[in-house]
Amino acid sequence: MSKIASTFSRLVRFVPKSNPSRILIGEPVDASIDVGLAVYKGQEVAVRPFSGTSILNPGQKTDATETIERILSPLAQSEVGTIRCIGLNYVSHATEMNMDIPTLPTLFMKPSTALSDPWPAPTILPKITQRDNTGDYESEMVIVIGRDAKDVSEEEALDYVLGYTAANDVSSRTSQMNQSQWCFSKGFDTSCPIGPVLVSAAQVPDASKLHIRGSKNGKVLQDCPLTDLIFSVPQLVSFLSQGTTLPAGTIILTGTPPGVGAAKNPKEFLKHGDEFAIELQPHVGTLITKIENQA
Amino acid sequence: MSKIASTFSRLVRFVPKSNPSRILIGEPVDASIDVGLAVYKGQEVAVRPFSGTSILNPGQKTDATETIERILSPLAQSEVGTIRCIGLNYVSHATEMNMDIPTLPTLFMKPSTALSDPWPAPTILPKITQRDNTGDYESEMVIVIGRDAKDVSEEEALDYVLGYTAANDVSSRTSQMNQSQWCFSKGFDTSCPIGPVLVSAAQVPDASKLHIRGSKNGKVLQDCPLTDLIFSVPQLVSFLSQGTTLPAGTIILTGTPPGVGAAKNPKEFLKHGDEFAIELQPHVGTLITKIENQA
Repeated sequence: MSKIASTFSRLVRFVPKSNPSRILIGEPVDASIDVGLAVYKGQEVAVRPFSGTSILNPGQKTDATETIERILSPLAQSEVGTIRCIGLNYVSHATEMNMDIPTLPTLFMKPSTALSDPWPAPTILPKITQRDNTGDYESEMVIVIGRDAKDVSEEEALDYVLGYTAANDVSSRTSQMNQSQWCFSKGFDTSCPIGPVLVSAAQVPDASKLHIRGSKNGKVLQDCPLTDLIFSVPQLVSFLSQGTTLPAGTIILTGTPPGVGAAKNPKEFLKHGDEFAIELQPHVGTLITKIENQA
Repeated sequence: MSKIASTFSRLVRFVPKSNPSRILIGEPVDASIDVGLAVYKGQEVAVRPFSGTSILNPGQKTDATETIERILSPLAQSEVGTIRCIGLNYVSHATEMNMDIPTLPTLFMKPSTALSDPWPAPTILPKITQRDNTGDYESEMVIVIGRDAKDVSEEEALDYVLGYTAANDVSSRTSQMNQSQWCFSKGFDTSCPIGPVLVSAAQVPDASKLHIRGSKNGKVLQDCPLTDLIFSVPQLVSFLSQGTTLPAGTIILTGTPPGVGAAKNPKEFLKHGDEFAIELQPHVGTLITKIENQA
């Protein structure tokens, strides 16, 4: 086995201005542009479409040029399967939550129905979260699996990684803390926006060199280098694949750094109208979502 | 909204003897036969095939007759999505595990890759479970959702239920207890055999009238009426649908009665070669799986 040979550096899945009923994938013409931020600001983002319609099978770059009307999650709900999430994977976040540093990765899951798109697609706070006002953000780096992985060693784990993106692991704290399990309080529809682009693994030889930042309405609340990760990308992929097939397309949310709303004083819970931005640099850029109450 | 009008009483998904490369669904000709037990004993089971290929869209009964070569899970992996599981839903099981009686359902999830077929398809104990010899059985009643459900009240919950089947929530106790979350230790490939048939909701107007029994190599280890359930079918469907779409095909494992291997004295952990039978009566019948070590 060897590393996945990508035909791209960064891919965005998007609806083009030329035809709002189509979905394309492609590479931004300007390799340095922050696609999420540019679209948010209303800038024109030119993209060179690929021949395929999935980042799992992108085909080849074409000669056409399209402009982004709307960014979609790099993978569709039908492609991600059950979403894997790691809790407590930053030393400093475990400390702020008064949790012991885990000796094994703490795994919980979100259903694929939780997956959603970047701005202007909203993150919806369900009524059960509104009731006690405990909607919270978690800025996370995401591993995207590119070929079926099972019983993979740490040494060969990176051969199964297609690339990386960002996610917000939107959480409802009261439900989470009132129960022994996290799947309910973190599995609501739209509780897992991902994007704005998929960066190929070749661009990120060492994910611990990335830096993640989370901001609410422009105020920085999370700001941390990924050197603080307790479990590395190879350790996570290897652990999660023990006895378990991770099909191509599986996404793994790798935990959040310190600064979640529940740990702030005063607390910084999410409210209708808030905008939350997760910046994963270099390469990935900014994942923005708008918070809305479920009507 | 009204109850789902089924064209069937009990459906089995199966490979017919007439053509082992086909998958059919159909109704046993003998309405009283325990399909799981009969196939295990090598008896011929005659089935009237339906025109459809999915229990979510079964079509109409045909005039043909087929014989079962192999029983499959009533739904395919591609149909169930993320599997919902309830922990601690029998008063007497919470007691034996020294857990408090929960005031809200405890939700964990299995990936769809965990789904597997009845006997002779094996339940595989992965190496990580073999290492500490803590593979365990959990006999469970399963709710099958028949139409997309979101924010459903308890009063209307049964309108979304297509029917019921049985499952074994195969678990690895050391991994489960060493970590705060259950998804890892209960999510291995083949850790969720379901079957042998789907019984329509019309046949089971009150699921608390069912009775479940679990036996290892013929020795009864779990034996409990479903009147012992803490959270009823309407309560579970309503709770799980809060802010969350349960797509048609979603299966909900409703927890296990007392008598799991970890609570026995001496403990009754699963070993290579064991056969575990879950009998859910009336109507559903016997789900048998053979335990095998991962090579």
